[in-house]
Amino acid sequence: MTFSASVIGASGFTGGELLRLLDGHPQFEITQATSRKYSGRSVGYTHPNLRDLKLKYSSPEKLEPVDVLFVATPHGVSMSKIDAFSEASNVVVDLSADFRLKDPLKYDEYYDGHSCPELLEKAVYGLPEIHRDDLKSAKLIACGGCNSTVTILGLYPLFKSGLLTLEDIIVADIKVGSSEGGASRSTSSHHAIRSGIVRPYAPISHRHEAEIEQELGAKVAFTVHAVDMIRGAAATCHIFPTKQDLSKSLLWKAYLDSYGEEPFVRLLSGTGGNYRYPEPKVVAGTNNVEIAFEIDERNNRIVVFSAIDNMMKGSAGQAIHAANIAFGIDETIGLSHRSLHPTGAP
Amino acid sequence: MTFSASVIGASGFTGGELLRLLDGHPQFEITQATSRKYSGRSVGYTHPNLRDLKLKYSSPEKLEPVDVLFVATPHGVSMSKIDAFSEASNVVVDLSADFRLKDPLKYDEYYDGHSCPELLEKAVYGLPEIHRDDLKSAKLIACGGCNSTVTILGLYPLFKSGLLTLEDIIVADIKVGSSEGGASRSTSSHHAIRSGIVRPYAPISHRHEAEIEQELGAKVAFTVHAVDMIRGAAATCHIFPTKQDLSKSLLWKAYLDSYGEEPFVRLLSGTGGNYRYPEPKVVAGTNNVEIAFEIDERNNRIVVFSAIDNMMKGSAGQAIHAANIAFGIDETIGLSHRSLHPTGAP
Amino acid sequence: MTFSASVIGASGFTGGELLRLLDGHPQFEITQATSRKYSGRSVGYTHPNLRDLKLKYSSPEKLEPVDVLFVATPHGVSMSKIDAFSEASNVVVDLSADFRLKDPLKYDEYYDGHSCPELLEKAVYGLPEIHRDDLKSAKLIACGGCNSTVTILGLYPLFKSGLLTLEDIIVADIKVGSSEGGASRSTSSHHAIRSGIVRPYAPISHRHEAEIEQELGAKVAFTVHAVDMIRGAAATCHIFPTKQDLSKSLLWKAYLDSYGEEPFVRLLSGTGGNYRYPEPKVVAGTNNVEIAFEIDERNNRIVVFSAIDNMMKGSAGQAIHAANIAFGIDETIGLSHRSLHPTGAP
Amino acid sequence: MTFSASVIGASGFTGGELLRLLDGHPQFEITQATSRKYSGRSVGYTHPNLRDLKLKYSSPEKLEPVDVLFVATPHGVSMSKIDAFSEASNVVVDLSADFRLKDPLKYDEYYDGHSCPELLEKAVYGLPEIHRDDLKSAKLIACGGCNSTVTILGLYPLFKSGLLTLEDIIVADIKVGSSEGGASRSTSSHHAIRSGIVRPYAPISHRHEAEIEQELGAKVAFTVHAVDMIRGAAATCHIFPTKQDLSKSLLWKAYLDSYGEEPFVRLLSGTGGNYRYPEPKVVAGTNNVEIAFEIDERNNRIVVFSAIDNMMKGSAGQAIHAANIAFGIDETIGLSHRSLHPTGAP
Repeated sequence: MTFSASVIGASGFTGGELLRLLDGHPQFEITQATSRKYSGRSVGYTHPNLRDLKLKYSSPEKLEPVDVLFVATPHGVSMSKIDAFSEASNVVVDLSADFRLKDPLKYDEYYDGHSCPELLEKAVYGLPEIHRDDLKSAKLIACGGCNSTVTILGLYPLFKSGLLTLEDIIVADIKVGSSEGGASRSTSSHHAIRSGIVRPYAPISHRHEAEIEQELGAKVAFTVHAVDMIRGAAATCHIFPTKQDLSKSLLWKAYLDSYGEEPFVRLLSGTGGNYRYPEPKVVAGTNNVEIAFEIDERNNRIVVFSAIDNMMKGSAGQAIHAANIAFGIDETIGLSHRSLHPTGAP
Repeated sequence: MTFSASVIGASGFTGGELLRLLDGHPQFEITQATSRKYSGRSVGYTHPNLRDLKLKYSSPEKLEPVDVLFVATPHGVSMSKIDAFSEASNVVVDLSADFRLKDPLKYDEYYDGHSCPELLEKAVYGLPEIHRDDLKSAKLIACGGCNSTVTILGLYPLFKSGLLTLEDIIVADIKVGSSEGGASRSTSSHHAIRSGIVRPYAPISHRHEAEIEQELGAKVAFTVHAVDMIRGAAATCHIFPTKQDLSKSLLWKAYLDSYGEEPFVRLLSGTGGNYRYPEPKVVAGTNNVEIAFEIDERNNRIVVFSAIDNMMKGSAGQAIHAANIAFGIDETIGLSHRSLHPTGAP
Repeated sequence: MTFSASVIGASGFTGGELLRLLDGHPQFEITQATSRKYSGRSVGYTHPNLRDLKLKYSSPEKLEPVDVLFVATPHGVSMSKIDAFSEASNVVVDLSADFRLKDPLKYDEYYDGHSCPELLEKAVYGLPEIHRDDLKSAKLIACGGCNSTVTILGLYPLFKSGLLTLEDIIVADIKVGSSEGGASRSTSSHHAIRSGIVRPYAPISHRHEAEIEQELGAKVAFTVHAVDMIRGAAATCHIFPTKQDLSKSLLWKAYLDSYGEEPFVRLLSGTGGNYRYPEPKVVAGTNNVEIAFEIDERNNRIVVFSAIDNMMKGSAGQAIHAANIAFGIDETIGLSHRSLHPTGAP
Repeated sequence: MTFSASVIGASGFTGGELLRLLDGHPQFEITQATSRKYSGRSVGYTHPNLRDLKLKYSSPEKLEPVDVLFVATPHGVSMSKIDAFSEASNVVVDLSADFRLKDPLKYDEYYDGHSCPELLEKAVYGLPEIHRDDLKSAKLIACGGCNSTVTILGLYPLFKSGLLTLEDIIVADIKVGSSEGGASRSTSSHHAIRSGIVRPYAPISHRHEAEIEQELGAKVAFTVHAVDMIRGAAATCHIFPTKQDLSKSLLWKAYLDSYGEEPFVRLLSGTGGNYRYPEPKVVAGTNNVEIAFEIDERNNRIVVFSAIDNMMKGSAGQAIHAANIAFGIDETIGLSHRSLHPTGAP
């Protein structure tokens, strides 16, 4: 059985990734790919990896009815168009921040407010590792932010298992690629300015803090650096636990309890070879998250490393994964990509 | 129906790429992956993208009988072991240079001679676009070099159609990534030395000249530059034709006659978008070659651009493609990968 | 003795490089750095390497009289403002294309025409290696384009010495960095689109062809590729000489005759170490051009490699060099920078 | 007045940087550059930026007497040769770890022990910002490690001013380039393996922890990541102060008190432009450290960013700076380099 699917905002980076995934998915069929700017052009015009697709952008004004609508527009668009989206499709998967937070006040604090706060409770946060059951009947799915996703997935088992408490100090030091900022132009995204950098672009108060606190129930001190890659998000979480004697085996148990059956989580042991710990190159193009940890006894610290492809597990891949669950099909379908080795900046 | 396959020299870059392709191929099943150095270790130790494979390196000393043997060893190994390889398998696909050239004297000129020249005639050069019929019954397949492949595929239709003559001056200016040199260490492949370069590493007399001349029947003045990518080979061929009035439509006809039905050749028209001409990023991880041309009337010149992934169309992908043909199965099977967009250095 | 100097268009990449050089130059003193957009801001706002300079952008509307005016504006601006520039300064050094060509018709062919063609004869092309004598009394200096500069310098001795003829076929295959396109934004200069590429951006008919033909008196078939660096231009010239028996010693003689005394030309012999041939990393930040050649007897070809920093020898460094000569001071003053080793993409 | 200087281990990355600095230094003159491997070759063979230097490597066996000896050998060499070094020169500036730590037991804990612990007290740690007075009469100078230097300089004013206490939790999350590992080959430094990474290479227990604790008197939880640059070290320090109400003005006062007169420290305010916070590109090739901070009230955290060029402020530049002080000359002499803008990976 196949389901019809459209992508709103398909000419952006995330929109293109959705098209790549949908085209390779045996149970979704693309109905429309909308773009205001490129309407009438082939999708290969903006996404050279899709040159062989016989699909043209259509105007976002006329949405055909579909089984599922993937929305890859900038923040603020979904909340203003949600009625039209819901009319066109019974299931809406939103990749923006518009429906991620439950608490409307957080939209005032971190964004520019919210125009339909009554829908926030209805939305399901898109991480199957935490919300699989709710996703099964979800009509409005809000995929997590890339930085939040990589942080939440790294820390979740430690909270779920009760090893951490709300008082524990946790730092998340994030390194991300330039696709995160989207395809729009700015002087800071110019190749000559953006290449070769380690640039603190959100030292404090990054918007994704709100999601992390919502999903983990705890505060995480969050700092984001731009580094010289295009796709990829890596989190190094430094944790100072109140509880003593957190052994490696306790931590392994926590991670295995949470993720032992998860199809897209890989736990690494930190031993052997050049790629001992999670890093973005190894997950590029895949829906995997890789996670590893070390215990630093000198400093009474746990260090957790996690890495994702921000355009896959951090957005488009997460969206397809959630949609698979919502439609009751095998949740790994269309998501079994392998990364390349060796390769350059992801 | 499935066929058993082993990879000799599986811990190298090309060996790993073969494993990636074979694992995703519905009609080949991996029997052995040999490595002298890593025997007993998991293949994921060297190839992090294969971490989930339950496959350990075995010693190259004990080869089990298989339907097809892929050999990814350094030049010189295949010719010395060809008896053992042929005993283990009815079909040998060699990715080294050992059986590419028909003329034994060329091995004296460009390499260190040849130890079994009598086998050279038996081998079939691995490019299906030129040797598809011979590949169908081939027992020894010699995959082309990456630089030769990208050059030959760019120029072949112009010779086949008779638009070029043997007197025409042709320059092939090549730009390649660091995977071409293999995984072995040298000061020149150190990250600090190799990053950010445009380095003429083979100004003249590159070994691949011999293959190009063999396949095209004409001399090509060949120069290779190392640039800052890992996989990828791009050729810019500058052609000064003796024949006058070579119009765009004549050239298009030549390319379409040769490649109109080819599953892995994409002809680009040079119009529109940021990716108008062939470039390695767009073919990374795929078995595609992209080709475009322009006519420079001011200089009575034709410029042909072609780009491949040196590890795919330039070696492992070409090998699988040729093997598909040799085994009479759909030749595109296991090779329908898409590249990522956007992404960094391939 | 010091001379006062202003930079018009100082907030761009080349403008910033001029400021860097002028600040370190013992005999020039910066009077104004103009920028329409950033007027009133510190120059360190756009050029972080100049953070310690106590210098603010001023409006280009009010030019103070100075000894020399460096103009780093987009093509077309200089020709429209040349009266104001000449009023403000007795010596104008223009880094745009506006006064490079002697033949006004070439501006129709390659640009959008010219508004003051009568000045073209007066301008001196900025390469001291060719026009040193004329530069001594020049009032209007037109610095060469970066791609033209690297090509002209590589080929000039072969023409000057008479080793090449006007009938010889010459290909210049160029690889350049992203600073060449300037600081203005476009989708093609976005980091995610521009990273990791080997992109033919000017397959034929690049504007710099006109300069090259003017300076060498011969046609050069010219193709430009964008590669993953920020500054740097590398030319590989493939030459098919009509004259036979061009030996290495004849070529060395030609290069030494032209460049033996040149302070910024380095001839490399192609032997030893990892950096045997010219490459942009080694000249980054310097005013040097490095040149090497090989004779390819199999193909009756000469290959010449040359590399410059497009922002130094290819624009701002060339400008200071020419100004040094015009003011009769030691021509190497303020230009004795060394590159870094090791380092990444230049 | 000039002083004679030799470099031991001059063919390595740091050795080459010392040669670059010494050659441009008006008061030091190079006597010997030793290299066991390249003895007899020109220094330009390994360091292409020094091609114009008429200087050949000599054997380390025969040291001529000099005023100052710079030692850039791997850890363990200096302690075994210190007698010969001290015989050759009255002042030894060691860039290895051999004399950095005061406590011999730390060498047992973090290294392989120490063979002349009695000398440890005599050595002066090379950071002028902390040890300027002691450096004036120092005979044995131990330059700090690059990761330690960038961390110590970021945190030092907060401890000196008493704003932090020994109980405060501090995380230093470090990002470094590949020159840090030196020029020796390993599979992990291969371009194809090392490019484009964010790789946790020292999750815990990095040796530089010991230096940091010694210099600051407090524990810092330390984690080091390799990223895709060649030179550069960036530290993000996350501090959870016990003292409340640490305002921006208090912090500014602390930094200005410590660094207000420091010639190589730049304090950034985090406002304006694309380069608001410290980053390695902006300090590449210079002896500067850039520092900025933010207060994160939501998390009761201070974030301090600092960036250096690991080969300059993090080793060779620090060495020259310290030597300037030891010889009583202007301490900024020979160290007034500017970085390039724009440029690629440092």
